[in-house]
Amino acid sequence: MSRALNFNAGPASLPLAALERARDELLDFEGSGMSVMEHSHRGKVYEKVHHEAVALVAKHLGLTKDWDVLFVQGGASQAFAQLPMNFLPQGKTADYVVTGAWGEKAVSEARAAKSLGVGEVHVAASTEKEKSYVRVPRQDELAITSGAAYLHVTSNETIHGVEYGLDASTPFPTAAAPVIVDMSSDILARRVDASQFGVIYAGAQKNIGPSGVTIVCAKKELVAQGRKDIPAIFQYRTHADNQSLYNTPPTFGIYLVRNVLAWLEGEGGVPAIEERNKKKARLLYDAIDGSGGFYRSPVDPACRSIMNVVWRLPTAELEEAFVKEAEGQKMIGLKGHRSVGGIRASIYNAVEVAWVEALASFMKDFAKRKG
Amino acid sequence: MSRALNFNAGPASLPLAALERARDELLDFEGSGMSVMEHSHRGKVYEKVHHEAVALVAKHLGLTKDWDVLFVQGGASQAFAQLPMNFLPQGKTADYVVTGAWGEKAVSEARAAKSLGVGEVHVAASTEKEKSYVRVPRQDELAITSGAAYLHVTSNETIHGVEYGLDASTPFPTAAAPVIVDMSSDILARRVDASQFGVIYAGAQKNIGPSGVTIVCAKKELVAQGRKDIPAIFQYRTHADNQSLYNTPPTFGIYLVRNVLAWLEGEGGVPAIEERNKKKARLLYDAIDGSGGFYRSPVDPACRSIMNVVWRLPTAELEEAFVKEAEGQKMIGLKGHRSVGGIRASIYNAVEVAWVEALASFMKDFAKRKG
Repeated sequence: MSRALNFNAGPASLPLAALERARDELLDFEGSGMSVMEHSHRGKVYEKVHHEAVALVAKHLGLTKDWDVLFVQGGASQAFAQLPMNFLPQGKTADYVVTGAWGEKAVSEARAAKSLGVGEVHVAASTEKEKSYVRVPRQDELAITSGAAYLHVTSNETIHGVEYGLDASTPFPTAAAPVIVDMSSDILARRVDASQFGVIYAGAQKNIGPSGVTIVCAKKELVAQGRKDIPAIFQYRTHADNQSLYNTPPTFGIYLVRNVLAWLEGEGGVPAIEERNKKKARLLYDAIDGSGGFYRSPVDPACRSIMNVVWRLPTAELEEAFVKEAEGQKMIGLKGHRSVGGIRASIYNAVEVAWVEALASFMKDFAKRKG
Repeated sequence: MSRALNFNAGPASLPLAALERARDELLDFEGSGMSVMEHSHRGKVYEKVHHEAVALVAKHLGLTKDWDVLFVQGGASQAFAQLPMNFLPQGKTADYVVTGAWGEKAVSEARAAKSLGVGEVHVAASTEKEKSYVRVPRQDELAITSGAAYLHVTSNETIHGVEYGLDASTPFPTAAAPVIVDMSSDILARRVDASQFGVIYAGAQKNIGPSGVTIVCAKKELVAQGRKDIPAIFQYRTHADNQSLYNTPPTFGIYLVRNVLAWLEGEGGVPAIEERNKKKARLLYDAIDGSGGFYRSPVDPACRSIMNVVWRLPTAELEEAFVKEAEGQKMIGLKGHRSVGGIRASIYNAVEVAWVEALASFMKDFAKRKG
């Protein structure tokens, strides 16, 4: 089998070892004569996998005992509504920092949740500039609401390629209120001090598993304060009280998360993967910056994502030719999001250094021929 | 590999052919050099699978063009809240028929949704009797609300083993309002006239796939009437307008649903599987009724489920011994739900006739030795 060089934005490449493990035991999990997905979620065989996945999330994120780690459903898209339903009571205001399309969507869904008895939404900062986003705001640019319920930020904007907290010049914002962070596209890509947050959430389908699993990590004291008058299924409390086994969880997806995080462990954990991710990002940004202007990154160098590298070519025709030629060399998923155009290479944890080297080399060759 | 005789209530047994297909192409889907779960949900390779799964659901359920077939997340448990959020506006009342634990839960979550701007919930009938349920109500027992938003029923109660519409003596209720039916545990197990319903919904993990996929089929005219002031993610309209690709769907789960429904097609479709299911159910009910009272079905014979066969033994000790001995013979999942005790054999579509024959034979042997 010749493996594609998969630069998809999500669902995305998964570690080959995690997939091989799934294939090898797909029909007979640990000698049980059943697939893991045929096991009851209330049986010992699955429960062991479930709790191992929870423990690996906590370990790799460096979470202390005062955090709940939940596996729920609906992706970040559902969390955009469900988080304010839990943590933004009527009469209160939540602050949102918008640094790209996903932050916009978080604001839009939180505002729509007003009809569900949710409080007010305030945009504390937006770095939108001519319908695009190229940086994160500085702390002194934030209009923080006094007594806010929480402050919401997006650590990495998948479409715009803008990332928070990459170094000392782009720190995550601080606030008196708990900071809720959407880490969908860079969770476990690098070391982050979890203690600065109240909630860390992510769809699994970029860095930690297949689509259909959502990870919500929340400080227990925050979960306990959540609204109680909404249906049980929407209360994070319910899932915390039942160790994410209140209703049937997406068992096979959680099993795959377990496989991916076990692979991460074997690779040396987050510190080692961070080194590799930075090396991969450097290869692409060097190819962009060294192209004499043929490739152009729209993003402020201090905020350039190490997960989603976006760039432009001189014309839309050249961009199209670039994507097409790359596909001919089995490099998949390089077309920028339809809302912004251009090129995007998503280089999540499972994307191999050799693939990125091949892409950088192709970039140089393409620029030489077409530049 | 020796395959377990899997009588789990859900997640449950899946057709071996569907699993083998998944294993064989897990690392390389259709020569793409990627797993199907690594493909973008917006790419042609996955989209083909997605639309094939939608078409197979519609075909096997006999749905006309005026239905939407949606793949969403959260299981029936989320639908219990989300359905009233869409279809029960303030000032209106919805009727619920309760024939077991899942109907109870549907009522409880719909009532809790009142805080989300949802209307009133009225129990039109409940067949609860001494903390159990043994039958479905007759039409003349229903206290239907005039001008109700909808009537909700559970076609098969997984825990209590009570099923609607098995023959002319237990028809589904009729109402002026649309009938919404939770078919989680008997969808596609037998021929049902879909035209009598407004919404048919089901978690996939019993008859059609792994956990983590929820199927909601709804008449288009009903979807169009749904509430518009709630977050987009909760509106079934959103998923209908975007062919269930508004946000990232659980792609691998939907791929498995496709595999299972393609297998069903090859087996002769719903009419053939209905024959087989009835034969399997008859084997077990005959073993119960022919045991001279050693085994006892609590359910009214006209309402005895063909999917979840429940029965009692003379003592709890004998029940425990039964489950333990059966496990020794690789018959898994026979313990009744913790809320009701006893024995339960879930004999969904993928459960093979030979397994049920083995169970019936074991029942006779056990009764002879212990009776």
